[in-house]
Amino acid sequence: MAMPQNILEKSVDKHVSIKLKDGRIMEGKLTGYDEYMNMVLEGTEEENDGARRRLGTVILRGNNVVSITPQS
Amino acid sequence: MAMPQNILEKSVDKHVSIKLKDGRIMEGKLTGYDEYMNMVLEGTEEENDGARRRLGTVILRGNNVVSITPQS
Amino acid sequence: MAMPQNILEKSVDKHVSIKLKDGRIMEGKLTGYDEYMNMVLEGTEEENDGARRRLGTVILRGNNVVSITPQS
Amino acid sequence: MAMPQNILEKSVDKHVSIKLKDGRIMEGKLTGYDEYMNMVLEGTEEENDGARRRLGTVILRGNNVVSITPQS
Amino acid sequence: MAMPQNILEKSVDKHVSIKLKDGRIMEGKLTGYDEYMNMVLEGTEEENDGARRRLGTVILRGNNVVSITPQS
Amino acid sequence: MAMPQNILEKSVDKHVSIKLKDGRIMEGKLTGYDEYMNMVLEGTEEENDGARRRLGTVILRGNNVVSITPQS
Amino acid sequence: MAMPQNILEKSVDKHVSIKLKDGRIMEGKLTGYDEYMNMVLEGTEEENDGARRRLGTVILRGNNVVSITPQS
Repeated sequence: MAMPQNILEKSVDKHVSIKLKDGRIMEGKLTGYDEYMNMVLEGTEEENDGARRRLGTVILRGNNVVSITPQS
Repeated sequence: MAMPQNILEKSVDKHVSIKLKDGRIMEGKLTGYDEYMNMVLEGTEEENDGARRRLGTVILRGNNVVSITPQS
Repeated sequence: MAMPQNILEKSVDKHVSIKLKDGRIMEGKLTGYDEYMNMVLEGTEEENDGARRRLGTVILRGNNVVSITPQS
Repeated sequence: MAMPQNILEKSVDKHVSIKLKDGRIMEGKLTGYDEYMNMVLEGTEEENDGARRRLGTVILRGNNVVSITPQS
Repeated sequence: MAMPQNILEKSVDKHVSIKLKDGRIMEGKLTGYDEYMNMVLEGTEEENDGARRRLGTVILRGNNVVSITPQS
Repeated sequence: MAMPQNILEKSVDKHVSIKLKDGRIMEGKLTGYDEYMNMVLEGTEEENDGARRRLGTVILRGNNVVSITPQS
Repeated sequence: MAMPQNILEKSVDKHVSIKLKDGRIMEGKLTGYDEYMNMVLEGTEEENDGARRRLGTVILRGNNVVSITPQS
């Protein structure tokens, strides 16, 4: 079985797209996470209602994360 | 009695439809889950207000899940 | 005293109507539940703003449940 | 001091009015409750924006309860 | 230092005004509370958007309480 | 490092401004707090959409607090 | 792997930008944080719908934080 934490682990140093509860999408390289699904992205780009913005390194609180899509 | 976790276990490697709190519906093959009902879908298609989008592998946070419908 | 968990236990294999936080009503045969009030319904029909839809088996997350009405 | 749980205990088999987070008011005989303030009502009438509906037995999730008014 | 629980303790049998998350204000004599800040009011008057209503005894769930103002 | 609890401790008996989740701002002398960030203010003034009101002593539930600004 | 807490630790005494659930952005020097991601900012500027305001020292409740962007 593919445990969610294992999929996260395999996604480290890969590009991911993360949907937040406030509707924003954060895209960047996943460089770390913890057991609360707090995450660290690098080279992050934020997409908010079609507008894109470069943010660099971002720490995301796990309780605001809705879904994580590893980019293939 | 049909325990919710058992039904999930039986649904692994089957197609499921998952309704999220933000109204989106995620459909795909359930490949794993954990005790927080975080889930992993593969070959995921997102439906959002009638618009469909292919997302591939997706990790869903359990606290955003409203209902899970195994496809028969 | 009628403990909530006992009433649930007595409702197993009976028809129940479950109101969710997002306003949907799920009706079906309760086939199981756990200590978080996650529940399993079979032969489920969803009612959403007057529209009805057949869903079959559904797992409901307990933290989205508002009220449960066993059908007499 | 009047502990909330004691007032609940004294209200068992009495008529109560329960306000839920979604604005509905549930009135009925309180037949049981647990430590999460999940409650069981019998002979329940739901009031929603002025409309009343008979529901019979209802299990209410404690985390959706705002206030409980024992009827004198 | 004035611990919140101590201020509550000193307010027992005094008149308090309690603001709830849904905007209602409950005024009455605080007759008890527990460690979750569930509270019991007697002789309660509810104020909702300017309309007042007498409710008698009310049990309030602590997680819906925003602020408590002891009346001097 | 400036631990949040230490900054709170240093703010006791000082004037603070507290923003709540419902948008209200409470200003007063912080006379106490606990580990849940429940707080006690004295000589409190509430600001709500520009309208100010004197409230005296107020107990605030920590889970409704967004930010605390000690006044210098 | 870059653990979220480590990135926070490295950001102490650096300028950060913090997005809150209510949409406000708080910018200032991060002088401390705890395990709940409560944070202390100094020299804080709040941005709310384009309006900026100087706030000085601010304690932020971790459960209202959505994302943290260390400024490079």
